[in-house]
Amino acid sequence: MASTGFWSREGENAAGDSNQSPSTPRAWCLAAQKFTGDLGSKLYALLNVGEGNKTASSATKKVLAASENCDCNKPCNCSKRNLDLSNLYSTDLLPASDGDLATITFLQEVVDLMLAYIVTSFDRSTKVHIRGRASVRAAGVRHSEEDEEIIGWQDGQGDGIFSPGGAISNMYAMLVARFKMFPEVKEKGMSSVPRLAAFTSEHSHFSIKKGAAALGIGTDSVICIKADESGKMMPLDLERRIVEAKQKGLVPFFVSATAGTTVYGAFDPLHAVADICKKHNIWMHVDGAWGGSLLMSRKHRWKLDGVERANSVTWNPHKMMSVPLQSSALLVREEGLMQNCNQLQACYLFQQDKHYDLSYDTGDKALQCGRHVDIFKLWLMWRAKGTFGFEAQIDKCLELSEYLYNKIKDREGYEMVFDGKPQHTNVCFWYLPPGIRYLEDKEERRRRLHKVAPAIKARMMENGTTMVSYQPQGDKVNFFRMVISNPAATFEDIDFLIEEIDRLGQDL
Amino acid sequence: MASTGFWSREGENAAGDSNQSPSTPRAWCLAAQKFTGDLGSKLYALLNVGEGNKTASSATKKVLAASENCDCNKPCNCSKRNLDLSNLYSTDLLPASDGDLATITFLQEVVDLMLAYIVTSFDRSTKVHIRGRASVRAAGVRHSEEDEEIIGWQDGQGDGIFSPGGAISNMYAMLVARFKMFPEVKEKGMSSVPRLAAFTSEHSHFSIKKGAAALGIGTDSVICIKADESGKMMPLDLERRIVEAKQKGLVPFFVSATAGTTVYGAFDPLHAVADICKKHNIWMHVDGAWGGSLLMSRKHRWKLDGVERANSVTWNPHKMMSVPLQSSALLVREEGLMQNCNQLQACYLFQQDKHYDLSYDTGDKALQCGRHVDIFKLWLMWRAKGTFGFEAQIDKCLELSEYLYNKIKDREGYEMVFDGKPQHTNVCFWYLPPGIRYLEDKEERRRRLHKVAPAIKARMMENGTTMVSYQPQGDKVNFFRMVISNPAATFEDIDFLIEEIDRLGQDL
Repeated sequence: MASTGFWSREGENAAGDSNQSPSTPRAWCLAAQKFTGDLGSKLYALLNVGEGNKTASSATKKVLAASENCDCNKPCNCSKRNLDLSNLYSTDLLPASDGDLATITFLQEVVDLMLAYIVTSFDRSTKVHIRGRASVRAAGVRHSEEDEEIIGWQDGQGDGIFSPGGAISNMYAMLVARFKMFPEVKEKGMSSVPRLAAFTSEHSHFSIKKGAAALGIGTDSVICIKADESGKMMPLDLERRIVEAKQKGLVPFFVSATAGTTVYGAFDPLHAVADICKKHNIWMHVDGAWGGSLLMSRKHRWKLDGVERANSVTWNPHKMMSVPLQSSALLVREEGLMQNCNQLQACYLFQQDKHYDLSYDTGDKALQCGRHVDIFKLWLMWRAKGTFGFEAQIDKCLELSEYLYNKIKDREGYEMVFDGKPQHTNVCFWYLPPGIRYLEDKEERRRRLHKVAPAIKARMMENGTTMVSYQPQGDKVNFFRMVISNPAATFEDIDFLIEEIDRLGQDL
Repeated sequence: MASTGFWSREGENAAGDSNQSPSTPRAWCLAAQKFTGDLGSKLYALLNVGEGNKTASSATKKVLAASENCDCNKPCNCSKRNLDLSNLYSTDLLPASDGDLATITFLQEVVDLMLAYIVTSFDRSTKVHIRGRASVRAAGVRHSEEDEEIIGWQDGQGDGIFSPGGAISNMYAMLVARFKMFPEVKEKGMSSVPRLAAFTSEHSHFSIKKGAAALGIGTDSVICIKADESGKMMPLDLERRIVEAKQKGLVPFFVSATAGTTVYGAFDPLHAVADICKKHNIWMHVDGAWGGSLLMSRKHRWKLDGVERANSVTWNPHKMMSVPLQSSALLVREEGLMQNCNQLQACYLFQQDKHYDLSYDTGDKALQCGRHVDIFKLWLMWRAKGTFGFEAQIDKCLELSEYLYNKIKDREGYEMVFDGKPQHTNVCFWYLPPGIRYLEDKEERRRRLHKVAPAIKARMMENGTTMVSYQPQGDKVNFFRMVISNPAATFEDIDFLIEEIDRLGQDL
């Protein structure tokens, strides 16, 4: 690998001699000294060492301030390089502007901790604390008070489980709803049960149908309810179809309302759905895989008003909250139901004569045996960011999408797929190249417009500049669906996106 | 944190001045220089710097040799710290004896790469290559020739999927088997299907019953077949129960043989099971979650003879092969069946006008939507260790368990739960404290013996010295089940375990 002399004594001296930006070289050296390879030169460029007139950011200043605490005057080889990071917050790290140094310093601390763990765990004089599988099995949800508060269930009610994803969480909901109404299904199967009917909007996620197929209910028993122009389930149609199903001898057992549909980002009217479910005694599920995280935002949580009346809620922290895949929870209002539904009490796993509080053995309420500890990443992020940190992150994404919407709604060559401000960060639009923009023949216009988004997307992939999803929906031809879930995006990125679509699509 | 002056110039000079073990200080410095915190002092102690008469291991020598390549005479601040690690093998890393330095050096390289990635990905001039979710969706299994070879399916046949764990893989198998026999179940549900019957041994994993409950088949339809004294399914009983079920009007559709039962580690006789399945036209599944990895061992793969006749196989690389949770595959012999069984062709995900080879879009054969990329860890480990590396690791675990078995089978105070050498690494035994050892009253002996394993386990947890599972099985009271899946364990660890059980259980 090419070296710019970054690691050389000359480089070190150059840094040490630079007094124009007095702290930067030292801090830079603190972090960058730990790198091998030509990463050094990249960091060098990134951190602009030598550009003395660059002003250090707040985060950089904190790292620098920490390094100032050492009592050694040498810039790089000081004896106390243990930075005190207690003054650094997650908001100081990337994507914070100029958060590079803080991030690198922080990550190196993490690495040190992990390596220390490895060293310790290979030391046979240390204690065995937890066996991996035992800890994994105990990784069910034990709700914090905060979780309850967030959904709005009363008196600390509630139960739940982390599952491998939203589709499985929705399937669990359907499974528990069926068990609640017909507990004998567990032993006797569907032959002991009348023909069931489940209801969800035509814009809902396909996992509702997949779940019905898997559970032996059948996709024909999932009745799709009409959505209005903005993608919300229509309560009148829901009630009409429930009555109709009953007349046909089916037993309605499950309504899945969607909080944040996949394509439009629409929120079904939860109070109206809850009223109907209550009237007809049907389990109300809310698929909040995508939109559930808006509960963290005081500004946007009204979009989920009524969620507190649901029997179960799917919520995927791995979407809007940026928890690394996989982190999906199914929350169930009635405690103990999941346990009764799924437990088999295999005696080789769930011994009753264990040495500790058996309420930590939550494994038997899952379909799985050993499980990935998906709650841990969320817990850690929550500790680091706090509820307000998540809120700020979510509000930022919504602000960015509103910015995009406002920029394109009246812009020439752009056409919105549905009227009004999007409720979530999904901004759905067509781009009409000049050659299509003024076509009179509506059918010809549709036909050609359908090919525009795939063609632009292909060019995006070739150019590697940006990536935006597209799809048709119902009778609407292919349109772009820009979804923002990365709070590191900026207004400039949105401006760039609009210009880039113009650039790539001009000649189509 | 306390510092031993490890980072001081004095420390550096001390290392540089030590010529007794000429290379060690330099190499030690290379790796340890990167650490902050008091990890330094631990490493210092661990690596025994200053004990000049210590002989460097082969792995350490390789790291040292790499560092010798620099053209700088200074021990620590050389300009070319880019170690050439191409000569290091995974077997040089921990748990290799004295693999500490190699491991640390290697891990630091990994960290450098990751940090370089972060730096690059925040550089807006770089290309967008893959969107996370797109890559995740494409993470189905596209088998390498090697996979096929391993199961033994002909002509490169086969299909599969990575799922969140063995229980879900087994559920997928049952789902696909049902669809194969009654494809209408997908739309019409179980009401369109006669009453089904599934068969598995009484020693099989509880996930077979959980799957039947979830899929609407019902646990009563899972018929448990007798196992012999060593835990293997009895083919005579299997056939008898299939005939009996048919006489009752049930439709047998699924037999799950177990390759490596959870408690005894027994392997069902696959050829005999396959003969019966063929005769009665029933789907043959092999739950090889635990034992499937023995296919990697030329010495032990005979235990799975007949697996090539199965219609589906569950295999969990996250167990015996030490791939980090989660990594579980369901392999299905008939191609396209999973796709037909599970696909819903949601148009917003599985567009047909995409810019690339659509055969990479394997997501629709899963129940899930977004998924964790579980195959990647396995692929990476396979690349690093090779088939022979995995084989060596597995053979080592079996060797350790055989060592344990040989040590305790005739030892006073120990009693084996079943006769003969265990087929897998499960060694099942009772420990009888002296006070119980000679009891004449059989019932009193049983009663007291039942409490011994939990009591010793509690002491193990308190002492933190070791952890061994225990459970009852059928009419057998609580016994220890020592399962070895960590190739870093040593014969000395086994000796220690036996002595520790003696020590902790003496007075019970």
